[in-house]
Amino acid sequence: MNHILTTELEIRTQHFQDKLAKQELDGAIILLNSDLFYFTGTVQNSFLFIPVSGDPVLMVKKSLQRGREESPLKNIVPIKHPREIPGILASFGYAAFANIGMELDVLSFNLYQAYKKIFLQAELRDISPAIKEIRAIKSPFEIERIRNSLRVADQAFLTIPTFLREGMPEIEVAALFEAELRKRGYSGCCKMRSFNQEFFYGNVCSGGSGFYPSYFDGPVGGTGVAASNPQGAGWKKIARNEAVYVDYTCIIEGYTGDQTRIFCIGELTPRMEKAFSDAVLIQAEVLKTLRPGSLAEDSYLLALQLAEEMGYKDHFMGYKENQVKFLGHGIGLELDEWPIFANGVKTPIQPGMTFALEPKFVFPEGAIGTENSFVMTEEGPEYLSITPEVITYLP
Amino acid sequence: MNHILTTELEIRTQHFQDKLAKQELDGAIILLNSDLFYFTGTVQNSFLFIPVSGDPVLMVKKSLQRGREESPLKNIVPIKHPREIPGILASFGYAAFANIGMELDVLSFNLYQAYKKIFLQAELRDISPAIKEIRAIKSPFEIERIRNSLRVADQAFLTIPTFLREGMPEIEVAALFEAELRKRGYSGCCKMRSFNQEFFYGNVCSGGSGFYPSYFDGPVGGTGVAASNPQGAGWKKIARNEAVYVDYTCIIEGYTGDQTRIFCIGELTPRMEKAFSDAVLIQAEVLKTLRPGSLAEDSYLLALQLAEEMGYKDHFMGYKENQVKFLGHGIGLELDEWPIFANGVKTPIQPGMTFALEPKFVFPEGAIGTENSFVMTEEGPEYLSITPEVITYLP
Repeated sequence: MNHILTTELEIRTQHFQDKLAKQELDGAIILLNSDLFYFTGTVQNSFLFIPVSGDPVLMVKKSLQRGREESPLKNIVPIKHPREIPGILASFGYAAFANIGMELDVLSFNLYQAYKKIFLQAELRDISPAIKEIRAIKSPFEIERIRNSLRVADQAFLTIPTFLREGMPEIEVAALFEAELRKRGYSGCCKMRSFNQEFFYGNVCSGGSGFYPSYFDGPVGGTGVAASNPQGAGWKKIARNEAVYVDYTCIIEGYTGDQTRIFCIGELTPRMEKAFSDAVLIQAEVLKTLRPGSLAEDSYLLALQLAEEMGYKDHFMGYKENQVKFLGHGIGLELDEWPIFANGVKTPIQPGMTFALEPKFVFPEGAIGTENSFVMTEEGPEYLSITPEVITYLP
Repeated sequence: MNHILTTELEIRTQHFQDKLAKQELDGAIILLNSDLFYFTGTVQNSFLFIPVSGDPVLMVKKSLQRGREESPLKNIVPIKHPREIPGILASFGYAAFANIGMELDVLSFNLYQAYKKIFLQAELRDISPAIKEIRAIKSPFEIERIRNSLRVADQAFLTIPTFLREGMPEIEVAALFEAELRKRGYSGCCKMRSFNQEFFYGNVCSGGSGFYPSYFDGPVGGTGVAASNPQGAGWKKIARNEAVYVDYTCIIEGYTGDQTRIFCIGELTPRMEKAFSDAVLIQAEVLKTLRPGSLAEDSYLLALQLAEEMGYKDHFMGYKENQVKFLGHGIGLELDEWPIFANGVKTPIQPGMTFALEPKFVFPEGAIGTENSFVMTEEGPEYLSITPEVITYLP
């Protein structure tokens, strides 16, 4: 069992127990895979109890063998049904609960009702804000994992010129690029915590496809391949002299990197080239002002102000009525972590926070801009993305 | 706007309104993407109200333009925040609600609370069983879509011999196979309705990897590439004379096909070959007895009985403590639709139901078996899978 992981989990649990104490909770039941993984190192089908003080108990339904192999926690026991939880916890001396924290931001109402019956005497309270707060600040161990995701992203982005061809449908570019990520260990579903948000790998859109809006809470839409999945790569063929916008997650060992790069077969119009430089410029200005303690909304507001001064009022972060009101988002085990760099969000940016910033513009002829992953340090934001930040022109 | 889709949606809505009337609900608010798509033809970020009688109202947050392009519904209006819903509905003459149905199987407790505040006078009741019941029986239009997903799956499965090589890591086989699916329009995230279940495309596992259990509620695990995603393809290299188990979804235009085929470089042991034939035999016996009106559990119990008689007690649908207690599952817009062919499930199988049956065995040397997608007709089950049901041997 990994010694570093053991220490990591102890520290994470301690932070969480401090929050539990402050909220006068006797403990919390953790169920969501990303939170389970964060506190235990495993996502085997299980139920985690973290008491306000004392050792956590991981109750594993399937597979117990694997739960014990993957997690260094001391107390890992079998369970068949959640109704056994109180009995199991009592055997560890955890009983007579008045208040229990649960992830009420993701737990369904029906499951909430089921847990109410299991813990008849306890009040179930939302513990998700505390989890999000703790998870927003990454340890050096986690930062190294996200850095690695961006290294892998870089390797995959560098292959794009080897297969990107005029006349190739966007979806084929996506297929080939995703295979480059996947064979390097892209580890599965991109996780979003918000209800109903879905993101499959990323977004390739070329030329006018980038102008087509979508349900997704991001600046750039894309047609998608069908109305059932109306976002990202579609059937349009890559043409000469248009922006090929490639915005992808790279998830390695559960940790999400996120970056965007622009490719072009031939050349772009001066307006598109200028917009790219201006996006990079806005990013640079934001990075200059972003320091430990800066408020998340300030980055967005500065970027918005600069974009408007540059004449991009209708184009910044989407076109007109489809503009989104943020500049970036936290990244980690989920794609939509805290902090959110959005209007009204007064989260102070702290060392250890990892995030993607994505100043982008949308025009009828296409989407363009940049996106990089960063970590906040004591000295300011540091790039985790290592792919050269240029438009890659192909002959 | 597609005339067939318009008729489809009218029929689906009518079925749903019959259920609403029986449950004495004034209407339902539909939020989940797969349900939204089913009733509207779009998954733009929106809120759907279906009254117990009268025309539905689709309130679209983003993108309204696209919602109107994709959905043939009559009433499609803009909305910025769910608190506007009562006002908008009142403008259509829908007001003074006593009971409203919602998808309480997936709606989070926090969102439930938010809707309680929006509809202060109404009781919010779970409408998800009614939705699952209606969605379980597919129209000819939907069956043709699932048939098409299996056609695309077939095309992709037929490419496997062109790239499967000894020494190739499982994850690279997965990457190349997924690219074959993706470039043909695999449309995005595989949807599972159950909490915390995640399935990314499918599962390639070779030899002993198939013996490694997982959290996933399926017969075969696989190591996965990391503890964060401990299921399916991992880093093990494909060896000679072992079963390469390929169990994949193929999602085209939102509709899920599901099938498993076995490949082998070299030859399999007589035990593995016999297990494959026995799985096919069990499937044939189940298909003989499966008629409209059969109970879902009977198929599972028959398969279990046959497997035990054949001497596979510890190997059927997983190994020993990791065995799962079902034989198959409904397929459609989600991978875990009704009916579930499991112990205790007394759902009568009806014409129009589409499902995957997957008799499989797990041994220390690997996983083997079969899986096909079917539709129930008046005369009995009909194959939707068209890929030859044989072990494909490569030199």
